[in-house]
Parts: sequence; C-alpha cells; structure tokens
Amino acid sequence: MPHISDRGLTMPASPIRKLVPYAEEAKRRGIEVLHLNIGQPDIKTPVEAIQAVRDAQLDVIEYTHSAGNESLRREFAKYYNRLGIDISFKDVLITTGGSEAINFAYYCILNYADEVIVPEPFYSNYYGFTTETGARMIPVRSSIETGFALPSIEEFEQALTPRTKAIMICNPNNPTGYVYSKEELEQLRDLVLQYDLFLICDEVYREFCYDEDHYSVMNLKGIEEHTIVIDSFSKRYSECGLRIGALVSKNPEIIQTALKFAQARLSPPTFGQIAAEASLKVSENYFTESFIEYKKRRDYIIEALNKIKGVYTPMPKGAFYSIVHLPVDDAEKFCIWMLQEFSYEGQTVMMAPGSGFYVGKKIGDHQVRIAYVIEIDKLKRAVKCIEEALKVYPGTIK
Amino acid sequence: MPHISDRGLTMPASPIRKLVPYAEEAKRRGIEVLHLNIGQPDIKTPVEAIQAVRDAQLDVIEYTHSAGNESLRREFAKYYNRLGIDISFKDVLITTGGSEAINFAYYCILNYADEVIVPEPFYSNYYGFTTETGARMIPVRSSIETGFALPSIEEFEQALTPRTKAIMICNPNNPTGYVYSKEELEQLRDLVLQYDLFLICDEVYREFCYDEDHYSVMNLKGIEEHTIVIDSFSKRYSECGLRIGALVSKNPEIIQTALKFAQARLSPPTFGQIAAEASLKVSENYFTESFIEYKKRRDYIIEALNKIKGVYTPMPKGAFYSIVHLPVDDAEKFCIWMLQEFSYEGQTVMMAPGSGFYVGKKIGDHQVRIAYVIEIDKLKRAVKCIEEALKVYPGTIK
Repeated sequence: MPHISDRGLTMPASPIRKLVPYAEEAKRRGIEVLHLNIGQPDIKTPVEAIQAVRDAQLDVIEYTHSAGNESLRREFAKYYNRLGIDISFKDVLITTGGSEAINFAYYCILNYADEVIVPEPFYSNYYGFTTETGARMIPVRSSIETGFALPSIEEFEQALTPRTKAIMICNPNNPTGYVYSKEELEQLRDLVLQYDLFLICDEVYREFCYDEDHYSVMNLKGIEEHTIVIDSFSKRYSECGLRIGALVSKNPEIIQTALKFAQARLSPPTFGQIAAEASLKVSENYFTESFIEYKKRRDYIIEALNKIKGVYTPMPKGAFYSIVHLPVDDAEKFCIWMLQEFSYEGQTVMMAPGSGFYVGKKIGDHQVRIAYVIEIDKLKRAVKCIEEALKVYPGTIK
Repeated sequence: MPHISDRGLTMPASPIRKLVPYAEEAKRRGIEVLHLNIGQPDIKTPVEAIQAVRDAQLDVIEYTHSAGNESLRREFAKYYNRLGIDISFKDVLITTGGSEAINFAYYCILNYADEVIVPEPFYSNYYGFTTETGARMIPVRSSIETGFALPSIEEFEQALTPRTKAIMICNPNNPTGYVYSKEELEQLRDLVLQYDLFLICDEVYREFCYDEDHYSVMNLKGIEEHTIVIDSFSKRYSECGLRIGALVSKNPEIIQTALKFAQARLSPPTFGQIAAEASLKVSENYFTESFIEYKKRRDYIIEALNKIKGVYTPMPKGAFYSIVHLPVDDAEKFCIWMLQEFSYEGQTVMMAPGSGFYVGKKIGDHQVRIAYVIEIDKLKRAVKCIEEALKVYPGTIK
C-alpha cells in the first residue's frame, strides 16, 4: 500500500487525549475515573447561550460569512473595548475554535521549515500545529523552580535563527498556570521589534487570573502590526463544544490573508456562532461565580498536592492547570499504571503526562499536567488516589 | 513589519466568495442579486435535525470525542451499509465539514512538495488546501466538449512524477456536474494499483445523480487501503452551516493518523453532530423531494442557457453545478461588471469566474460556474439577466 506521510508519522498524539482508551477500559471495569487530564470545565454554559440556539428561527442551516457573522464580530470587538483594548470588528476573524486561529496564524506567517520560539513546557497542540504547517517549534525552557516565569531574553536570543518568524506565548499559561507580567511582555515587545518578528499570544484564559489583573499584548504599543491574538469562547463560557474562537490582529494584512484560509474552509459553525454571540451579552456575574469556584479549587489542590512526599507544584496564578513534579521513574508509565492497574476505593485518576508538553522529554518524564476543572469533593478524592498510588507504584522514587 | 508567508501570499481567494464585496455593494444600491455563485441550497434542512438541537438537554457544551460521537459514527456507517457499502463505524472519522476531511487526508499522505493529480476544472478549495499543506496540485484537463468526462489514463500517466502520491476526484463533480461511470472508476483503480497511489474521492453530492445511479469508489475491490472518501452533511441535508463532514477509509492507518490531526483540533462541533445524527434518521422522502426539485431546475437552466447566442454548457449528470462557456473577453471581468455596472429590471446575477477552477487560467477566462440552488422563478430571471447583459457588455465577443 502507499505510504503515510512523514508529517502523519511524526504528528504527536495528544498527551491529553491519548490515554483515553485506558480510561475507557478502567470505566468498563467499574472504576470511577477522576479526570484531571483535560481542561473541560464543569461550570455551566450560560443558559442564555443555549436558549439562543433553541430560539433560532432557521429553516435552512446555511453557511455564514467566512469571517463569521458580522453581528458576532461586532459584539466581540465590544467585549475587547470593555477590557480597554481598542479594536474594531474588522480586526476580528471568527474561527472554528482557538485551534483554527492558531492554524491560520501559522499559515499566514510561516513557510516550510520556518521556526516559532515557544517557552517550554507549552500547550501540546502548538507542536501539533507546527507539524501540520511543516514548520518547527523551537522551545526555550522555563522552569518549575521559578514557577515557569518567562525565560530570560538572552535565552530567546540564543534560540533565534534566520528562520525565526515568531515568538508564541500563552498567557495565562496552559499548561503551567503562569501569568506573564506587563514587564515580561514589554521585554518581548522589545525583542520582536528588534528582530522584526511576529508575537502570537494565546489569551483564551484571560478571565482566569487569580492574583493580579491580566495584561493583554494588544495593549503593547508600537507592535500592533506584529501582534496576533488567539482567542476562544471555550473556556471563558464553558462552551468547548461550540468550536468558536477568534484570530485578532490590528495588522490588516494578517486578517486579509487569514480570510483566504477561512474562505477555503467556508465558514465557522452556525449554531456555535449564535451561542457565542449570546454569551457575550451575559452579565459579569457569570465570571465572578466561576472565578470564585476555580480559585477555591486551585487553593485547595495546590496545597494538598504539595503535602504529598516528593510531590511539588508551584502556585499557578491563572488558567486552571498546574505542572506537577512527581517522584516517579516515568510519569507516562505512572499515568497508564494508574488507569490499568490501580484503584483506591473504586476510583482512580487520569492525568496528562508531562512529556507531551516538552520537545526534550527528560524533564517532562517526571511531570504531569493537572486541570482543576472538577468540583472540590472530586479533587479531594483525586489527591487521595495520587497519594495512595505513589505508595504502591513500583517506580516510585523513595 | 515582519512578512506574510509565501503560503499566505499565494493562497488563492475563493473564486466563489471573492466577489462578495461587489455583491454587497450592489445590494446597497437596491439591486436584487440572484446568486448562482455558491452551492448554498435553498432546500429546507430536515426539521428533525433542527428539533434535535432544540431538544438537546445540555448544561455544559462539552468537547466530544475527537473522532466524533460514537453514536453519530455508528449511524453514519449504517447509512453507508444501506447504500451497499460495507464499512464499520471504525472506518469513519467525523470532521468539521468536508473541508477538514480534505485537509486531514492531505496531511496524512502528503509531504512538502508532494503532488496530487486532479482533473481540471476542479473544486477550487482543493487548490487552497494543497497550498496550505505545502503540496502541489497537478491538473489533468477535462474538456467541455466531452461534458468533462474523465481524461484518458494516458494523460494521468503523463502527469505522474516520483512525487505523485494520490489521484483526487470529485464524483458527482463540482464544478462540472459530471458523474464518473463505474468503468471510468475501474480505470482509476487499475492506475492507483499499478503506481501504488492513494485515490481520494469526494462524494458529498452522491445523492444528486439525475440520470443514473452513483457508483462509490468504496465499492472498488482490491484498493481498500488506497481509498479515502471525503463526505459531508452540508449538501445532502441542506445543512452547510453545521460544519459536519467525514473522512471514510478502510485503511486503519489512515484513520489512526487522521485521528492525531483530529486530536490537535480537539473535536467537531457538538450541536452540528446532534443535528447530523438526527438527519441520518430522516425518511427517504426527504431526498425524493429535493431530487425532483433539483432535476427540474437543471433541466430548465441548461436548456435556457444554451439558447443564448454564444453560450454553451453541457448537460450535468449530477450535483447542482455546471460550467458555462460565455462569449466574453474575460469571465471574471464580466462577473464583476454584472455586479458593478449592470442591472436589468432592478436585478443582476452573481456567478463564480471559471479561472478559479483551473490552474492554467486561459480556458477558465471564458467560463463561469453556476449553481442551480435557487428556485425556478429566480433561475428564469437570472437567465434573462445574463442574456441581456451579454447584449450590452463591452467585452462580448460577437
């Protein structure tokens, strides 16, 4: 038979989803699997969003404009304006999830074999999308000791080559929970200006900053043409299944080029756009409630995990993830073992192995990413499971 | 500022959508624009599909499985079984529209600079997707004189290079309306076997064959591992806005590789999957009604267009498109002129310039693609507009 492409062979399976078959098997054995692996919030979607879909009077579910419905783009721009970011709806292209916004951004700026520098650990799908694009992701290591603060600018400079086209960050960060400060972002501004690079910033967790306010790269002056923001409704309104995101840039060439890629895929989902537009009109109380809930969960799980012998995780400042160091020989083996061979009082835990968030695998081999998107009671049981598992796992480093 | 990628610069704008600004401008001037440019059916979406979305009891709009809901995959496999095609749900990956299925197929089998041979004229977005993938589309010319029948196998062989990875066809064909016969498909089977190529077949218009039954490449024996089918709910159920399609293959390596790309984009839209699953359960009468309507429209417009002096279009056997030769200096100029400068009794017509369906542009310069997805009364007025426009357009070849 003919061959699968190199791109297909090297494409990584999602570290967040690849253990799903083990979890399904555990569930079939009657074990309750506590999911710390995936950022699927359990907070309710705004009822207004679901109602808007129910109320839609549609006889024919038509394509929409490739850039998304203008009414949605206008509401979305207003939401940015409320955050103090001066954009118009023409700076917004609605995408099929934040994922597609990343894809379009890469297509717009990367040729084959071009490079994007990304602090490591990184959201694993960035790596997948560079693979799709035929480009290369160049990691610059951030470390658990500093709580995953921005690596020094010298380290970024050392990673630069003539092929470097962009720096990409995620702020608040998935998978580390770190929130970059205004000062750190200003350092990046100077860097991208000096070397004439694009700055791609994934701000889908913008509302989830627990200790200080979020500073958007859209507010950095003088690099408006360099800046591309990845955005999404998925986490903000707990509506991951809508598949509605956005690419935002004040560089009209970026928006016009992205529109050509958008035309090829015709349009973003119609129902999702209806729900997204309704979501933008919900009261601020919606965020307050979910903010309080996530903060409570964070405070609980970070303290509880750090009490387990040999376990360390820094206090995340935002999003709803944390990278956790575990005293094990191989975190992926440990995660599979927990699903295949372990249970405690009929329960076990699913986590995302750290190696999928690194290009170099050694550090990630002792780390997992957890998402604290389940209720406190479940988090408590999950922590207990991890504690008990480490006591009996054959590869625990004593 | 930093540069847009070559990929972004060479990416073509959709020939179907790029004239939209001219149409919007005409509408602002109060002119009724009759849309023959886009395959957006006006047939009603099954009410069961819309009702299923209204009835869905969801508190949280979650991600689904990356391959799509298993219940939808199983219903979809049953629909294939009803067509006499022996597949299981494991051979089906649900995608975000047929567009994404094309993307995944290309990612799975094409390296940078690899080649796909496609009969020309072709669905213009194939070209866009090869551009995204960094691959090359190699056209093999089919001609209006033969009604766009399959080019000879010798012509395909002449186009082969060591870089050729696949032959791609669309059956029934967009933009020509041609339906490949079993015999033509068997010729392609022999070719892909001889040269160890993949055969990608876009069968999204399968139900729209007006003169004879459709023969699916999934029924060709001996090339099961070579065959990838692109499918979609958009046209079949008049639900383009759902953005639900599928990649179908009996080659498990293709499905497993495509799943990795699917994991990177997380999941197809939740609401769309609900509507799609409900659509698969609607009565066959749904198709009968739309079939009769489309056939009536086809018979009318093809005859009417051929009566206009200098205009020629072959009788399409399927889908709802036809390529029309026009006696004009430049069909794109003519299409823009019709929107910008022409109106007849307050109406004008929007068509897709032919050049976007060809790599080599000369032939397409005298052709347009029309879609007969509006009701007969509008089609009549559209034909009258075209006839009157050709009388006064300065570039009409007398």
